[in-house]
Amino acid sequence: MRTSVTIRDVARVAEVHPGTVSRALNEQTRALVNPETAERVIRAAEQLGYRPNRIASGLKTNRSYTVGVLIPDLTNPLFPPILRGIEDGLEEAGYTLLTVNTDNDPERERRHMEALRARQVDGFIAATARLHVELLAEVAASGTPVVLVNRSLEDGSLPAVTVNDRQGIRLAVDHIVGLGHERIAHIAGPQNVSTGHRRYLGFLEAMGAAGLEAPAERISFAKAFTEPDGASACEELLAHEPRLTAIVAANDRLALGCYDTLEAHGLRCPEDVSIVGFNDMPFVDRLRPPLSTVRVPQREIGAVAADLLLQRLSDGTQTAREILLEPTLIIRGSTAPPADTGS
Amino acid sequence: MRTSVTIRDVARVAEVHPGTVSRALNEQTRALVNPETAERVIRAAEQLGYRPNRIASGLKTNRSYTVGVLIPDLTNPLFPPILRGIEDGLEEAGYTLLTVNTDNDPERERRHMEALRARQVDGFIAATARLHVELLAEVAASGTPVVLVNRSLEDGSLPAVTVNDRQGIRLAVDHIVGLGHERIAHIAGPQNVSTGHRRYLGFLEAMGAAGLEAPAERISFAKAFTEPDGASACEELLAHEPRLTAIVAANDRLALGCYDTLEAHGLRCPEDVSIVGFNDMPFVDRLRPPLSTVRVPQREIGAVAADLLLQRLSDGTQTAREILLEPTLIIRGSTAPPADTGS
Repeated sequence: MRTSVTIRDVARVAEVHPGTVSRALNEQTRALVNPETAERVIRAAEQLGYRPNRIASGLKTNRSYTVGVLIPDLTNPLFPPILRGIEDGLEEAGYTLLTVNTDNDPERERRHMEALRARQVDGFIAATARLHVELLAEVAASGTPVVLVNRSLEDGSLPAVTVNDRQGIRLAVDHIVGLGHERIAHIAGPQNVSTGHRRYLGFLEAMGAAGLEAPAERISFAKAFTEPDGASACEELLAHEPRLTAIVAANDRLALGCYDTLEAHGLRCPEDVSIVGFNDMPFVDRLRPPLSTVRVPQREIGAVAADLLLQRLSDGTQTAREILLEPTLIIRGSTAPPADTGS
Repeated sequence: MRTSVTIRDVARVAEVHPGTVSRALNEQTRALVNPETAERVIRAAEQLGYRPNRIASGLKTNRSYTVGVLIPDLTNPLFPPILRGIEDGLEEAGYTLLTVNTDNDPERERRHMEALRARQVDGFIAATARLHVELLAEVAASGTPVVLVNRSLEDGSLPAVTVNDRQGIRLAVDHIVGLGHERIAHIAGPQNVSTGHRRYLGFLEAMGAAGLEAPAERISFAKAFTEPDGASACEELLAHEPRLTAIVAANDRLALGCYDTLEAHGLRCPEDVSIVGFNDMPFVDRLRPPLSTVRVPQREIGAVAADLLLQRLSDGTQTAREILLEPTLIIRGSTAPPADTGS
């Protein structure tokens, strides 16, 4: 019977997390645990027949119970709820998340990832797969599990949890078309990021399915998913196609940039131009006008990524697999029938 | 001359961060650095006469170039810009920030802090000084520098960077009084958090200075700085003092909760009730109505905290000192003269 006692059993009896058991039973790290807690853990281990020295010979001896999380920009309100979902999944299992902000800078990402590896994290969750696929692949090849979140690689070589981007844009386009719009523009995100590229393809597909044209002058590519880039993309669209009546933006921040440009041009939303975003970030329901958008289940994305990583940590497999979560359309005040066909 | 060569000189010549030099010159961590980079660092070190073995005998041998950052809630938009400011200061000096979210849970904070200490961070920046002063004090006493940000301890025993809360509330009250309001209510934050307590005292002071009363029925204490707590505090105020014409909220999220409660009661902001927030979080300028608030220099708070920590890391001193940054009033659409004295 004693051979089946695990670190989790000790954790349950001592009423602590497995990571604490690991630290309390290791003499080198015991000082980091509250003395009373350490004593409780040691008592529980003895009681269950799980002795400290079994760790040296035993299972998962060098697990650190920490996971590195790479986020491209924490000031983007999309990411904190994803992070919260990741925490929900991993903290339950006793892990501490060490989060680093890479500012979308590959050199910074490499440096932070090195620092995390030096701190011996057990795995990574990355929301940042942009220009440095090699780095992630190298880490995964070295045996440290990597799960992507809100991003995926075209070759599917790393497990990923994303939203169904094409379906999301389809919902947005169908809504706008249903309101009677025809001259519909798209502000696409960066095309070297999976979300930007898939949403652009989704727009072309959905317009085609609706029997509408999507000429080049109604598509503008933003360099980054930010308000200023959305504002200048909107400027460009208005310059080339002043008769447009609706804009499908590849994310909410680009949509907010459109609000600014429309206001600067004395145009009203939704009376003159309808706008749809993507993500349903916190607070967009409180904007003027409240933003119609495609809701991404942010917290769930994080939680599913945590599950994928835990699975890989427990069985060691690295079979790539992409999980697509379904988005939903949220209709608010930024979309209405076009003026010339409205009531 | 050779004795004056520092790790920073090597970093400059090799065009990398000091943390990378440290890792490249240490055989145990060299594998974590890109091989070409490592070679460049070793060449630069040889060229300058800074030899790897000097590290063993030398200065700051066991510096990890990582700093732990404890944030109570990353989904609170106040914190990401503070984090960005901390990064500005520390990354420039070659540090990697390992950020953990404590969810305002003391047990979680203890666990995460243990995990960070086990990963040998050089210091901590904490935005979470709530119930576990002992823990922070213990860490600081063990020789690991700790700097508080957006929070301080009443006894001033740890260095802290905060905004001048009393002055901020004074600006808010003076603005509201200047508009002609007299029945002014306050939604106070949690009183075991320095910001909540100081803003409450600031409200009493400012009302007194304006010659106005601040009776108990016009003050409601929120349990946490969140929208739902702001909404119920606002409910309570309206129940006890339906004639109030203005609310000074201890932060923006409490103010947003007021928006919800007013709407539920069919009251308009600012026509029926004016509202002022505190912090000037991202996006509050885009709300309906745009929120008048007290702007906290978030990024600067983070940058100054980083400077304080760097100073402590370089000279090893732990003299406590609180740096107060000055807030500014931002007037937007949520404040107007009261209906009965308005034009």
